[in-house]
Amino acid sequence: MNIQTLKGFRDFLPKEARKRQYVINTFKKVFESYGFEPLETPALEYEELLMGKYGEEGDKLMYRFEDNGKRRVALRYDQTVPTARVVAQYQNDLPMPFKRYQIQPVWRAENTQKGRYREFLQCDIDIIGISTPLADAELLTAVASSIKKLGFKKFKILINDRNVFKQLTDRGTVEVKNLPDVIRTVDKIKKIGREGVLNELGNKGYSTEVASYILQSLETQKVTPLIAEIFKYMEDMGVDSTCYEFYPLLARGLDYYTGIIFEVEIEGYTAGSVCGGGRYDNLIGMFAGKKVPATGCAFGFDRIMEAMEEANVFPANLETTKVLVTVFSEELANKSLEIASRLRAQDINTEIYLEPSATMEKQLKYADAKNVPYVVIVGEQEIANNTVILKDMQKREQKQISIEELVQDLLPARQGDSETSSE
Amino acid sequence: MNIQTLKGFRDFLPKEARKRQYVINTFKKVFESYGFEPLETPALEYEELLMGKYGEEGDKLMYRFEDNGKRRVALRYDQTVPTARVVAQYQNDLPMPFKRYQIQPVWRAENTQKGRYREFLQCDIDIIGISTPLADAELLTAVASSIKKLGFKKFKILINDRNVFKQLTDRGTVEVKNLPDVIRTVDKIKKIGREGVLNELGNKGYSTEVASYILQSLETQKVTPLIAEIFKYMEDMGVDSTCYEFYPLLARGLDYYTGIIFEVEIEGYTAGSVCGGGRYDNLIGMFAGKKVPATGCAFGFDRIMEAMEEANVFPANLETTKVLVTVFSEELANKSLEIASRLRAQDINTEIYLEPSATMEKQLKYADAKNVPYVVIVGEQEIANNTVILKDMQKREQKQISIEELVQDLLPARQGDSETSSE
Repeated sequence: MNIQTLKGFRDFLPKEARKRQYVINTFKKVFESYGFEPLETPALEYEELLMGKYGEEGDKLMYRFEDNGKRRVALRYDQTVPTARVVAQYQNDLPMPFKRYQIQPVWRAENTQKGRYREFLQCDIDIIGISTPLADAELLTAVASSIKKLGFKKFKILINDRNVFKQLTDRGTVEVKNLPDVIRTVDKIKKIGREGVLNELGNKGYSTEVASYILQSLETQKVTPLIAEIFKYMEDMGVDSTCYEFYPLLARGLDYYTGIIFEVEIEGYTAGSVCGGGRYDNLIGMFAGKKVPATGCAFGFDRIMEAMEEANVFPANLETTKVLVTVFSEELANKSLEIASRLRAQDINTEIYLEPSATMEKQLKYADAKNVPYVVIVGEQEIANNTVILKDMQKREQKQISIEELVQDLLPARQGDSETSSE
Repeated sequence: MNIQTLKGFRDFLPKEARKRQYVINTFKKVFESYGFEPLETPALEYEELLMGKYGEEGDKLMYRFEDNGKRRVALRYDQTVPTARVVAQYQNDLPMPFKRYQIQPVWRAENTQKGRYREFLQCDIDIIGISTPLADAELLTAVASSIKKLGFKKFKILINDRNVFKQLTDRGTVEVKNLPDVIRTVDKIKKIGREGVLNELGNKGYSTEVASYILQSLETQKVTPLIAEIFKYMEDMGVDSTCYEFYPLLARGLDYYTGIIFEVEIEGYTAGSVCGGGRYDNLIGMFAGKKVPATGCAFGFDRIMEAMEEANVFPANLETTKVLVTVFSEELANKSLEIASRLRAQDINTEIYLEPSATMEKQLKYADAKNVPYVVIVGEQEIANNTVILKDMQKREQKQISIEELVQDLLPARQGDSETSSE
């Protein structure tokens, strides 16, 4: 039997799971500070609801099957189509604008050789039902706050207005039907360089002059009135102006964007952008039978995790347990248990060693294996003195103190407190 | 097209999603205070790993299919079998005891007519790799703390020792092979009553005398030494003795329990127990090829939610947004945006109204629809005075104050603070 996970699927053992929770909680906190609210949709949907929404590739990569009731069903492929369903299904109950965040796994039968996973977390925020530049500005501000709150010092939101591409068709340089293809080519400029784009446009039948003209007209593009208005709002909301810039070569390949588009780059992280999005006014209404404007973005959760590791911005102490209280016999257990309860009552995460007959060495080894920073030793002698030994596992120091002192010592330092340590 | 969820699957709109998050966060906080650590496993596993682990019924209700790579796969049916796989797969990396919590959805093609769902959250804690009564006591203490922390005032953990049933076979009253069947019958006593159990035992061929003897010998059962030791530890950990009792008629139908078993009942909630578990020393080692003792339990998430609604123990203000800041024109927006930023900097969840041309009435209506408790009105006059109007949407009161006073007013009351409201 295969005692293993499926290819492209992952277990998250405590150490990794804690880091993921830290990132999720940070996102939630920032999203909620802007009034985004949680939404959850089911893992399975009717197949027909998802089919044809993600192009041919999407239909191929989707996990689809027949359930026990002979229904054709499919696993969640993204969070936007289910949200479009929600907007149609509950249109009378959802106050608009509907500002929602959604952080759930999606499933795609990707080729895993590229370091891609078949189950991965999507982390989306969207403002639905309103088309004002102020909504775009708020979205971008929330993005900047999120990235900052995660600990990244240097990052840049590259922002463009999808309408800058329209001049190419307005002037007749590119035929309307060919525009998406030209956009997809320009989108590769960071990967294949300027020459690469010119060559690819050449292969598509554009003369050297026209290809150059296309690139140059984008490169010299001035900030559009829409972008100028959004930037003004972002400034009013206090976003540091070094965090964002107008970048007219940003294209984002997807056809459905109708207004601003943007991507977030972390300085020093070269695997790609960690967040991307824009305005897409024609998508969310697909099931509602009417136009529902929307602006939103998706954070690449795995890339965020990777970039945070590289930038070393995870907090030092994400361990669950702060203190291990030793137990040396069933008879002496009561003092240890009482101390553990007192510590927990002060919101100090406390484990007791669950095998009362174990040696001191074994108990300390367990604390080390789990990276528990403090051990409280409650032996026969300590109980007689009504004291404990507090051992700092990092510094390898220990001291004998009263139980009152112990509680004081282990309380997290509060703002405004003077030093209360008895060391 | 079906613009709806599949039968037995649910969307959670913000109001419900917030309540779920509140419960999940409360559980996590308590679990972590005892040193339980998060574990996540994939939604999909190899089918052969799950098949045959949940009885015939389980195999039938499992969502199973062939993936694009012709592998037979199945959706997570519970969290115990995947945990057993994790224990086998990473046995050299997991410090024992492994205390993990896991809160993920599982999928079962249940008959939905009984108010059952096909996708529901499981919430488990387990202590793996240790067989001491102290571990059982800690598990039970963590359960009591969780239920209390959720806000339930009156609840009872009914606790039994699976070994009390062994006396029935030891004395020859019941044949060993028939014991599970007798246990399943006794297990129904709360549903079908004493007479019901006696009748059912009669139908299974036990004489009236033997059936009565079976019930009576359980009813008069004294606390076993194991239970006595566990109760002693629970007392040492400060668990209120009115929260738990020895209940020798508790059977729990599942065959795999080997030691204590327990269920939690909330006073006044009649739909059933909200948590159940016990010691199961022969299950977790199934893939590791060795015996791995374990004790653990599962909280019924949907029942907990229902019982909390009935007992009215959800906090009053779970709304995401605390304040809506109005915006009355693009020109006046900057003051509103600046105020919103100042409030967010103080961790006050703040929305701005995203359509600057909307009437006051429309902006207030939005706040009402979203249950936002406060609205900050920033009109032309207020901007001229450098003041704002703070409107309390519940009390329907408003006052004109400075921006400094506004921030002070909206800060959550901190412990030890004197009253700072300027009302």
